[in-house]
Amino acid sequence: MAANKIKAGIIGGAGYTGGETLRLLLSHPDVVVHFVQSRSQIGKKVSDIHKDLLGDTQLLFTDTVDDETDVLFLCLGHGESKLFLNENAISSSTRIIDLSQDFRLGEKSNDRTFVYGLPELHKSAIRKSQNIANPGCFATAIELGLLPLAQAGLLKDVNTTGITGSTGAGQKSQETTHFSWRTNNISAYKTLTHQHLREINNTIKHLQPGFGDSIYFVPWRGDFTRGIFVSSVIRIEADLTELNKLYQDFYSGAAFTLVSDSMIDLKQVINTNKCLIYLEKEGDRLVVHSAIDNLLKGASGQAIQNMNLMFGLDEKSGLRLKSTVY
Amino acid sequence: MAANKIKAGIIGGAGYTGGETLRLLLSHPDVVVHFVQSRSQIGKKVSDIHKDLLGDTQLLFTDTVDDETDVLFLCLGHGESKLFLNENAISSSTRIIDLSQDFRLGEKSNDRTFVYGLPELHKSAIRKSQNIANPGCFATAIELGLLPLAQAGLLKDVNTTGITGSTGAGQKSQETTHFSWRTNNISAYKTLTHQHLREINNTIKHLQPGFGDSIYFVPWRGDFTRGIFVSSVIRIEADLTELNKLYQDFYSGAAFTLVSDSMIDLKQVINTNKCLIYLEKEGDRLVVHSAIDNLLKGASGQAIQNMNLMFGLDEKSGLRLKSTVY
Amino acid sequence: MAANKIKAGIIGGAGYTGGETLRLLLSHPDVVVHFVQSRSQIGKKVSDIHKDLLGDTQLLFTDTVDDETDVLFLCLGHGESKLFLNENAISSSTRIIDLSQDFRLGEKSNDRTFVYGLPELHKSAIRKSQNIANPGCFATAIELGLLPLAQAGLLKDVNTTGITGSTGAGQKSQETTHFSWRTNNISAYKTLTHQHLREINNTIKHLQPGFGDSIYFVPWRGDFTRGIFVSSVIRIEADLTELNKLYQDFYSGAAFTLVSDSMIDLKQVINTNKCLIYLEKEGDRLVVHSAIDNLLKGASGQAIQNMNLMFGLDEKSGLRLKSTVY
Amino acid sequence: MAANKIKAGIIGGAGYTGGETLRLLLSHPDVVVHFVQSRSQIGKKVSDIHKDLLGDTQLLFTDTVDDETDVLFLCLGHGESKLFLNENAISSSTRIIDLSQDFRLGEKSNDRTFVYGLPELHKSAIRKSQNIANPGCFATAIELGLLPLAQAGLLKDVNTTGITGSTGAGQKSQETTHFSWRTNNISAYKTLTHQHLREINNTIKHLQPGFGDSIYFVPWRGDFTRGIFVSSVIRIEADLTELNKLYQDFYSGAAFTLVSDSMIDLKQVINTNKCLIYLEKEGDRLVVHSAIDNLLKGASGQAIQNMNLMFGLDEKSGLRLKSTVY
Repeated sequence: MAANKIKAGIIGGAGYTGGETLRLLLSHPDVVVHFVQSRSQIGKKVSDIHKDLLGDTQLLFTDTVDDETDVLFLCLGHGESKLFLNENAISSSTRIIDLSQDFRLGEKSNDRTFVYGLPELHKSAIRKSQNIANPGCFATAIELGLLPLAQAGLLKDVNTTGITGSTGAGQKSQETTHFSWRTNNISAYKTLTHQHLREINNTIKHLQPGFGDSIYFVPWRGDFTRGIFVSSVIRIEADLTELNKLYQDFYSGAAFTLVSDSMIDLKQVINTNKCLIYLEKEGDRLVVHSAIDNLLKGASGQAIQNMNLMFGLDEKSGLRLKSTVY
Repeated sequence: MAANKIKAGIIGGAGYTGGETLRLLLSHPDVVVHFVQSRSQIGKKVSDIHKDLLGDTQLLFTDTVDDETDVLFLCLGHGESKLFLNENAISSSTRIIDLSQDFRLGEKSNDRTFVYGLPELHKSAIRKSQNIANPGCFATAIELGLLPLAQAGLLKDVNTTGITGSTGAGQKSQETTHFSWRTNNISAYKTLTHQHLREINNTIKHLQPGFGDSIYFVPWRGDFTRGIFVSSVIRIEADLTELNKLYQDFYSGAAFTLVSDSMIDLKQVINTNKCLIYLEKEGDRLVVHSAIDNLLKGASGQAIQNMNLMFGLDEKSGLRLKSTVY
Repeated sequence: MAANKIKAGIIGGAGYTGGETLRLLLSHPDVVVHFVQSRSQIGKKVSDIHKDLLGDTQLLFTDTVDDETDVLFLCLGHGESKLFLNENAISSSTRIIDLSQDFRLGEKSNDRTFVYGLPELHKSAIRKSQNIANPGCFATAIELGLLPLAQAGLLKDVNTTGITGSTGAGQKSQETTHFSWRTNNISAYKTLTHQHLREINNTIKHLQPGFGDSIYFVPWRGDFTRGIFVSSVIRIEADLTELNKLYQDFYSGAAFTLVSDSMIDLKQVINTNKCLIYLEKEGDRLVVHSAIDNLLKGASGQAIQNMNLMFGLDEKSGLRLKSTVY
Repeated sequence: MAANKIKAGIIGGAGYTGGETLRLLLSHPDVVVHFVQSRSQIGKKVSDIHKDLLGDTQLLFTDTVDDETDVLFLCLGHGESKLFLNENAISSSTRIIDLSQDFRLGEKSNDRTFVYGLPELHKSAIRKSQNIANPGCFATAIELGLLPLAQAGLLKDVNTTGITGSTGAGQKSQETTHFSWRTNNISAYKTLTHQHLREINNTIKHLQPGFGDSIYFVPWRGDFTRGIFVSSVIRIEADLTELNKLYQDFYSGAAFTLVSDSMIDLKQVINTNKCLIYLEKEGDRLVVHSAIDNLLKGASGQAIQNMNLMFGLDEKSGLRLKSTVY
């Protein structure tokens, strides 16, 4: 019965992560979508903006927050979540999952404190939390590739290259999201200075406090819409069998993160909430490859995973997604 | 309980439609995958071939058909289904859904007769049938665009152009499925002679017996992997309001076929079982656009829809799929 | 010596056709680029906007037209060429090649009359002309596919579907040129009402005066950047051998339009000035496939071809381009 | 007059690099294509295999080598060039440019010694050479990104990630060149073990003899057909201004290698013979980005550049190519 279902609201429902959160919630067996807010699209049919939802929902975009909301997903731009919570009185019984970067480094909003929502690291804290700061997309892919090494205290310099799809850049038109520019193109951006480095270093130091913030991360723009593929190179003495065991153990209880025993490719995870990891070793260098769907495990999927944990549901509820694969 | 679930088997599980059928069945709430057969991959892990299924199944490919099977999906090449049924004694209590073209024109196998599995046209026959001939991908998209006109006896000459993704050509390597050839490329093939024309004409004449087989169909190869987009031009006097009403009425009970009131695009349906239709009229020419995912509504999704009907399940069971959209 | 070279100026040099015209002129053996004007980019380095030209030119965008210009390429939006010629006094000795649609239907500007610049049809008039209205991209592909039939008086109803790359939509950001939308997507637009229909009908009637403007043209947006592929279906009694001879004869003197004896694909012409044509016949229906690069034979390449004719140069001068092919 | 032109022959003319070499030679002002050999396509029209050349050449594939050949391009698979030269008596007056990796490390064939054909490093030796070992595609992009540092003795550990188009994998069908697999996909291969590392280390040590072979190179498969984009991260104390000057000086005489003062992207170089380089510095880490077209500067274009030098022609002759850019 809908009466027993979790009432979910979405703030910023017209963008990519808002739409993707909505898609997941609409078919989640334990949730009813209570409202979808969007300042830019008030009053319009949700399916006029997210046209793939034609026939799936009759909802209109609202401009208000309903008090009777069990969980609120903030799908706003960076800086806007903080602003939204300052300007709107949200019932203290409403849990918040924020997809922006506003609360990932321990920032508070009024009395609300936020748990960094990476279930592979903080599952029990997430279960007890009222507020979640959902990790960044590159941060998720890079952290999941490094956490077992951090726990073992093995990280020194890390050289990481990552490539991301166009949806990582959001819906706003820019030269680099123009089809005529991006098709068949590759370029780098925010070389060594990507904003996710802060939460990555923070997360690694949670496990390996002495880590020296020495991740040299080169992000690339890829000519595809969805997905992140990352390769990290680390100098390590341990042999590959040991390292594979380390990873297998670390992720033995993970719902969506898997260590592969053969090379991975990006499309294995597209339209799923999985993170796949593959290790290779040559001489004293370990290479860790990891892959996620930036909108799912890198954003909305992980947000639902966090919601599942917060509400005591099966961690995979609503997240058994058919991959696109081809 | 699995004991009450439908036991499904897949013949030809290593190909595209076999894999896609498997993906759908693995998360279908009323089905348990009993076995996946493949002559070429016997004994291998299913997830070593369909690598996106890593973590989702421990099944190995088999080479035998289990007698205790409720429904058998034949995901074989054209001509091979007939051969398979000739060479294998399938229990008479096992229902068969054949994805090849072998039984779409009324062909029989031993005592088995096949219902053409287009739910929008033959829903009640499908519900009572033991054996289904699942429609072709282009056939599905074109027929759904024309059926309301056929029912009203309005079809004369039809000029149709359709474009299909590379998965329509199957897994075997050919020049035209080589990435270096197909990327950014368009070409035509089987001009006016596509094999689906037989079932399309057959289906139309079911509703409009006097139709003169006058569909002039130009198929194009598209530079994408999934999906079919079709535009049909027909000379018709009726005005657009009437025609929209005709279509809305015809599809009022359809689970997945929807008439849009604005232009459609291919990605609205990708990774879903939907067919979207949009009508435009200019002078005395009607243009009907229709779009499907060739592997879902055009193959495996429609097969599951047929299974749902045959077994008295909710027609949408296991088919509430998250679109990829971006 | 530069002193003997044709001095060319470009108006609107920051857009796609302006940039492509510039690329061709920079390596044209008989031309020197005199100036490149752009209202939006005055004073900037040309290679800062057209970044592929780094190392190829030191030119800056200007805002003025130099009087000592032998030929002026107007690479402006539709309506803007007319405005530009009204507002700027261009020396009467300067020849004009206009890439907009402003003068394609016989419109005049002051005393200037324009020849429709399709060399396959109007070569001798182009040679003698002072002003050229360069044909539209879809118009070029469709007309070249139909002209031999028009000359033979064989055209009745024509059903045409065409697909175009994103560069056909220009540089301005729109939803349908956003990478996240357009990748792997297909949709229709301007169904049966595309603006090029006027010049197409006009051109056909030049050869077949009784033609009834009965081209039913459905344009599609393709998920690639460059190129147009068109298939036209026509009811015709003549057999294929006759028709091929008709086309071969018609294009025997054409510098860039070729009749293929096997199926064509789009990438055969990308980054070249060619138009390829292929004929198929089934029953009483002829299908004519044609393919061009929309920015070259469909715009800037044809403009240079016209310039070559106007100035008595080898028609292929500066247009022996290496195709991209892969 | 053709009589004064260089007579060029191609061995292995049906593959990607053979085709690309042929395209360049056909429009080279100082060359006549004497013959195109292919064992697999003997007697067929060249334009039936390289269909973009329809109308550009009437040549047929041959199976013999003509003695009156001034320069022979070996466009064969790795290992096959050595075999070819063993099995065929090539006139001592015929110069050889080998595109395979067979002679890049100083290997000889009979009396023939080969100069490593990287004009930025060995221009004067190339001018005097009879035989050229044309560099590998990844090798070219990586070396050009590192040579100025090697000359200054500044290289220690180098962490490099590179991405390559599908044409880098050749024409043979494989799972990873199937369109349905590769579209929108990314994966790694030959991690830290790519065969080009040998020639890269060899070339670096030519300038910095003490270099410790410490390039950690992770190659990725990209979802595009043409191009290589590389980012190398190096620990270096020198500041960015100095480093830019170092690169500018090193490449001041280079015909096609340019140091950009803003971020580069892959499409700036596609369908050209350019290599673009861009430097960034953050803390003590230098990042060098470099981009080439793998079939041009990474293969056939560089081969023509070497030919130009060997025959005393303008280094850019036949290589002023229009980029595709969009």
